[in-house]
Amino acid sequence: MALPEFSMIERLRRRNPVSRPDVVLGIGDDAALTSVPAGVELVLAVDTLVEGVHFPANAAASDIGYRVLAVNLSDLAAMGAEPAWATLALTLPEADTGWLDSFADGFFGLAEQHNVQLIGGDTTRGPLTVSVQIQGLVPAGEALRRKGARPGDHILVTGTLGDAAMGLWCVEHNENPASINRDFVIGRLAHPEPRVRAGQALRGLASACIDVSDGLLADLGHILAAAGAGAVIEVDRVPVSAEYDHLWETVCERIAHDRYQWPLAGGDDYELCFTASPEIVPGMIKCLEAVGTPCTDIGTVEPGSGIRCIRDDGAAYTPQQTGFRHF
Amino acid sequence: MALPEFSMIERLRRRNPVSRPDVVLGIGDDAALTSVPAGVELVLAVDTLVEGVHFPANAAASDIGYRVLAVNLSDLAAMGAEPAWATLALTLPEADTGWLDSFADGFFGLAEQHNVQLIGGDTTRGPLTVSVQIQGLVPAGEALRRKGARPGDHILVTGTLGDAAMGLWCVEHNENPASINRDFVIGRLAHPEPRVRAGQALRGLASACIDVSDGLLADLGHILAAAGAGAVIEVDRVPVSAEYDHLWETVCERIAHDRYQWPLAGGDDYELCFTASPEIVPGMIKCLEAVGTPCTDIGTVEPGSGIRCIRDDGAAYTPQQTGFRHF
Repeated sequence: MALPEFSMIERLRRRNPVSRPDVVLGIGDDAALTSVPAGVELVLAVDTLVEGVHFPANAAASDIGYRVLAVNLSDLAAMGAEPAWATLALTLPEADTGWLDSFADGFFGLAEQHNVQLIGGDTTRGPLTVSVQIQGLVPAGEALRRKGARPGDHILVTGTLGDAAMGLWCVEHNENPASINRDFVIGRLAHPEPRVRAGQALRGLASACIDVSDGLLADLGHILAAAGAGAVIEVDRVPVSAEYDHLWETVCERIAHDRYQWPLAGGDDYELCFTASPEIVPGMIKCLEAVGTPCTDIGTVEPGSGIRCIRDDGAAYTPQQTGFRHF
Repeated sequence: MALPEFSMIERLRRRNPVSRPDVVLGIGDDAALTSVPAGVELVLAVDTLVEGVHFPANAAASDIGYRVLAVNLSDLAAMGAEPAWATLALTLPEADTGWLDSFADGFFGLAEQHNVQLIGGDTTRGPLTVSVQIQGLVPAGEALRRKGARPGDHILVTGTLGDAAMGLWCVEHNENPASINRDFVIGRLAHPEPRVRAGQALRGLASACIDVSDGLLADLGHILAAAGAGAVIEVDRVPVSAEYDHLWETVCERIAHDRYQWPLAGGDDYELCFTASPEIVPGMIKCLEAVGTPCTDIGTVEPGSGIRCIRDDGAAYTPQQTGFRHF
């Protein structure tokens, strides 16, 4: 007696492109079974996306599928973990196979890139909510953590910041200059690239690490709180894309804040922010370049508390907002 | 900078009554870290409860907290696993600390009974939806599965069936005879007891196992589909509580179906249904009694397909419905 829930999970199971040797039993029983090698720790994270909160009501299902996995992969990246398995809790207003297939396109496309096998799921009826728990593996004792930064450590970030916030503004204001710049920032919002290889490359090098989901100042704040320390950030060094700056020239007159706000406080870029002893920073930058990830030294951990922002000329800079508020 | 989301997770973390030695890093980083002993497999399940679908809008938060963990523990029970850790994805319309504290009462009360540590979570704003992923441990190769039943195996269930469906009817129809019978069936609905110890006791004995969440016929159907077999169920042997029968006498005139419907097709009892070779059934029943779980032999797996129901006198019985439909 094929219940529709069973059919939906089965439909996802058939699309699953990854079959890992460490999965003893995948989708289709009361629970999944996997094996964890000796000397390896399990890394577990969970992230939820809610319609109307984390994505608009008309968002493409494939984008939602991509994004919910990407944000979870980003958590594993911040721990330096190798992704392994995922489970999916999918709440849908109705059993819509077209939606489900599109969701699967986005989800499994990214899963295949990172060798993640979907091993379980629960589909329920209700307001559109998608929650993924991901499991990864890391050599015992080598995981990166938020805690561990020391005064004097440099602060670095991968990639560029502010793109996703600019992308969101372009979407919300229907800003449509049909430009490659607009496509770029909206792409950064819709399809953030989790820095999985960069995170693994940082094992043994970074003293602390976090992913930038709520905004640089907010997320760096967690590293500093765990360290009982403060920091100085040189705002002119915070990496910004050429596309961001081109768009900024176009839209800045309609925006109440300055160019630095989104790179400092905009969420959803999913870059990594990490700290390291100054002597290893040059080698670390080369190491990340080797896995295709640019990174930039933007400041220094210092004794005390709070984040001081300064301009090129040494003048203090005061951000107007500090990060995304979940409630 | 304490974001409200951070405060909510922190509030839950402080209530966590369990601290397991195999948790390397719990709530408070991008992901949790745990260690899995050699020779042990990881067992992972996920279940979601949605307001208005799985519980009414006025349900007590403590009941929701209990229930979402209980249904996950029931999945582990069906695999014969020992519960270990859980993560929580909690979507709430607003950051209501009173609701959260009540939720925590129910969740952590049950977590403590089963030595489950909450190791991660994500709180988001949106329509009330609660999803838990649970992780358990089982000696490698010893997990119970849905697959494995053979023709000739007997079919058994723990406890009694139909109570939760009767409880739901009493709630929905405001049936309020202020009786201990009503309290019993509503208690069975609100606080199902996951059969965790029974599941572990069945390792090496049961040929297949599932938990009865969608109704006996539907869930047994999964065991039979995996076996490529059918079954005969003796409906008069399906275990029913004295409380159920007392209430049935009171309400039966207002219900369109007969006494057997709810025990056969009502969901939410979270008993275990399992199969075993006939020669080990008597010892198995004793073994479950030793862990405080009554169980009853209700039928036999047979070649073919489908489930035949028969009465005491051998006459065929046709159920009016077969199980809960998720969509």
